[in-house]
Amino acid sequence: MFTENILTKTETKLFEYIENGTITTVSGFKATGLHCGLKRKRKDLALIYSENAATAAGVFTQSKVRAAPVLVSEYLIKQKSKIKAILINSANANACTGNQGFNDAIDMQDSCAEELGINSSEILISSTGVIGERLKVDKIKSGLKNISEKLSSEGGFDASEAIMTTDLVSKNFAMKVTLSFGEVKIGAISKGSGMIMPNMATMLGFLTTDASIEHDALQTMLTESVNKSFNRISVDGETSTNDMVCMLANENAPIKIDLGSKDAEIFQKALDDICVRMAKSIVADGEGANKLIIVNIKNAKSIKDADLIGKAISNSPLVKTAAHGADANWGRIIGAIGYSGAEIDPDNIEIKIGDLTVMGKEFQSNFDETTAKEILLKDEIEINIDLNYGNCNSTWWTCDFSKEYVEINASYRT
Amino acid sequence: MFTENILTKTETKLFEYIENGTITTVSGFKATGLHCGLKRKRKDLALIYSENAATAAGVFTQSKVRAAPVLVSEYLIKQKSKIKAILINSANANACTGNQGFNDAIDMQDSCAEELGINSSEILISSTGVIGERLKVDKIKSGLKNISEKLSSEGGFDASEAIMTTDLVSKNFAMKVTLSFGEVKIGAISKGSGMIMPNMATMLGFLTTDASIEHDALQTMLTESVNKSFNRISVDGETSTNDMVCMLANENAPIKIDLGSKDAEIFQKALDDICVRMAKSIVADGEGANKLIIVNIKNAKSIKDADLIGKAISNSPLVKTAAHGADANWGRIIGAIGYSGAEIDPDNIEIKIGDLTVMGKEFQSNFDETTAKEILLKDEIEINIDLNYGNCNSTWWTCDFSKEYVEINASYRT
Repeated sequence: MFTENILTKTETKLFEYIENGTITTVSGFKATGLHCGLKRKRKDLALIYSENAATAAGVFTQSKVRAAPVLVSEYLIKQKSKIKAILINSANANACTGNQGFNDAIDMQDSCAEELGINSSEILISSTGVIGERLKVDKIKSGLKNISEKLSSEGGFDASEAIMTTDLVSKNFAMKVTLSFGEVKIGAISKGSGMIMPNMATMLGFLTTDASIEHDALQTMLTESVNKSFNRISVDGETSTNDMVCMLANENAPIKIDLGSKDAEIFQKALDDICVRMAKSIVADGEGANKLIIVNIKNAKSIKDADLIGKAISNSPLVKTAAHGADANWGRIIGAIGYSGAEIDPDNIEIKIGDLTVMGKEFQSNFDETTAKEILLKDEIEINIDLNYGNCNSTWWTCDFSKEYVEINASYRT
Repeated sequence: MFTENILTKTETKLFEYIENGTITTVSGFKATGLHCGLKRKRKDLALIYSENAATAAGVFTQSKVRAAPVLVSEYLIKQKSKIKAILINSANANACTGNQGFNDAIDMQDSCAEELGINSSEILISSTGVIGERLKVDKIKSGLKNISEKLSSEGGFDASEAIMTTDLVSKNFAMKVTLSFGEVKIGAISKGSGMIMPNMATMLGFLTTDASIEHDALQTMLTESVNKSFNRISVDGETSTNDMVCMLANENAPIKIDLGSKDAEIFQKALDDICVRMAKSIVADGEGANKLIIVNIKNAKSIKDADLIGKAISNSPLVKTAAHGADANWGRIIGAIGYSGAEIDPDNIEIKIGDLTVMGKEFQSNFDETTAKEILLKDEIEINIDLNYGNCNSTWWTCDFSKEYVEINASYRT
């Protein structure tokens, strides 16, 4: 479904997606996903395991109300702790659970350490689901029994299923990247799907690589990629208490990447691309979403201005409902640009839906409604905005707003 | 429906609402509303007329894309032009219509001036409706023929109907205010109902008074009231190209109010109260709204922090859909507080739905779901948040988010 990427044709050759790839397509990593009883039937506990100690980087929610597992995992990454495992549960976010929640998070981590015969400080933890209810750690403990026997190099798919909440499809990715001294891989899994908005979303993303990258370099690269991808998506403008994107790099891998090298540049582009795919897949599977909307903002005075506009349009219920109804209501797009706070010259703005100009300079508008409707009825819509006011560009991703969104969220908890 | 106001009991006695009052309940003002052909059947042209030249104040949309009538009316008010009439059309916003739109606005104003035998600079103009389509001024001209004969001191109600777009009910208010030397009146009409969010909304509000207040004082008082009312409401987080609140004060009225006086203080409170009523009525009649949600934020470190939280909650699709489903999902409320950007101490926050504590300090939550459901099934819901972090308070108003909102907005234009 998402075939384009952000590289030029020559660069594209430097990396290639692996069909049916996942987080365990990368050598040195195993995973599993199983049902431990937090959900009624579906898988709810995932474990990602690195055979060697791995370097870890992470980006965490910017909410001031942060779930216990976020605090624990962020602390470990800031300590540059070497990581051997990531344990994730769905169905319960272990957020807004106070000291009890913190103790439960530690308990979950300790039990996993004991089962795997490693230190607690080698385990990142993550939770997603309902806020404010106590986590049933005993269920997680029963799920952890003999879990190392279940780990496999096919297990990424099970793990991707086990981290789902209201997602309709599991999200798996893997790519090969050709560097100077050989090939490395990046694997990834992620989940959405409501409360999606910078920074960041109820979204979890986990990545692995068999390149050897030291902590600070990995953190720098991951942060850059997250800023260009996960921080430019919106389903409903909500930011959650639990969001995190974590990446593990195999410390003993033969191919090493140093920041500032040509290889680092290539790897960064590959990482950007896989993060964009992960982010787009979350939006396309947003709660009640029927369409992916790509918002391209061109020729803004600054990246900040381009992002203000991208954010305003991506969060606009009026633009999103119009897209849902396949209505070429460009007035709502220019409306959102107007209140975004970005510096603009309204008379110079051009708006296209796909290739069709729906508003030219000085608000000239004269287009074929049937053609517009045809474009808007597709699964993937591009809104192209040329501000003619500078040379900075940005791309955002959002989805349409449907009655299903309301239906899902009017009764999520009960 | 909305019985409480923001004054203490003693102060309340100083003003009193007039049943079935409207903008023409105030002496010296006439109005009319009629059908000129911009809508298929319903009224679409309103005229408010002041027998004497009036002092005028106005607050206008903060969007950078501003409709022609906004530019014209704001200019006149900045010039401190004395005003005798306000001409308003619905169905077409005359926004994003370029130079042509500006000429059309002037044309509409000139035609009205000619018909009334006054100067164009004595007429404020206002439009609301679809963006980006040319205004049919000929229809407005035909509607203006002999319009002075239709003006009456009962005409406020017709005017309030003529400014409606997707509003379900017309909005009329009038109050008596007792000052040192006698009684004055304030009358008002307003319209919503989608795209409602600070600053300000596709909303129009017009007020009249038979107190004599000079330009700068009137502007100061109106701005203060708008900040406490229209700028604290949200239906969907959208700000329009056309919003305005304008107020006319009869220059020759016997009772004069000077800024800084005790009378000015009383009048300010009365004006605050009527603006809050106007704002609340817009939210309660928001597109697809079934419930009015009152968000009280107490003990914030600053008003700015209280407003950040009020805004985040009022715009949260997750809180609004939960309210729609009568689900006491306090996790979404604390979630919105967390990402609002306000300074908080999460452990010290208390959240009540009505009088029922759903989250105490340190995220303690232990309440009766049946009681919560009963409260949430009412037409008017209070969310009471105590931050225990300072002594600044703020109140916001929003509505629930329903499937009807999506239905209305997926097909508004076509």
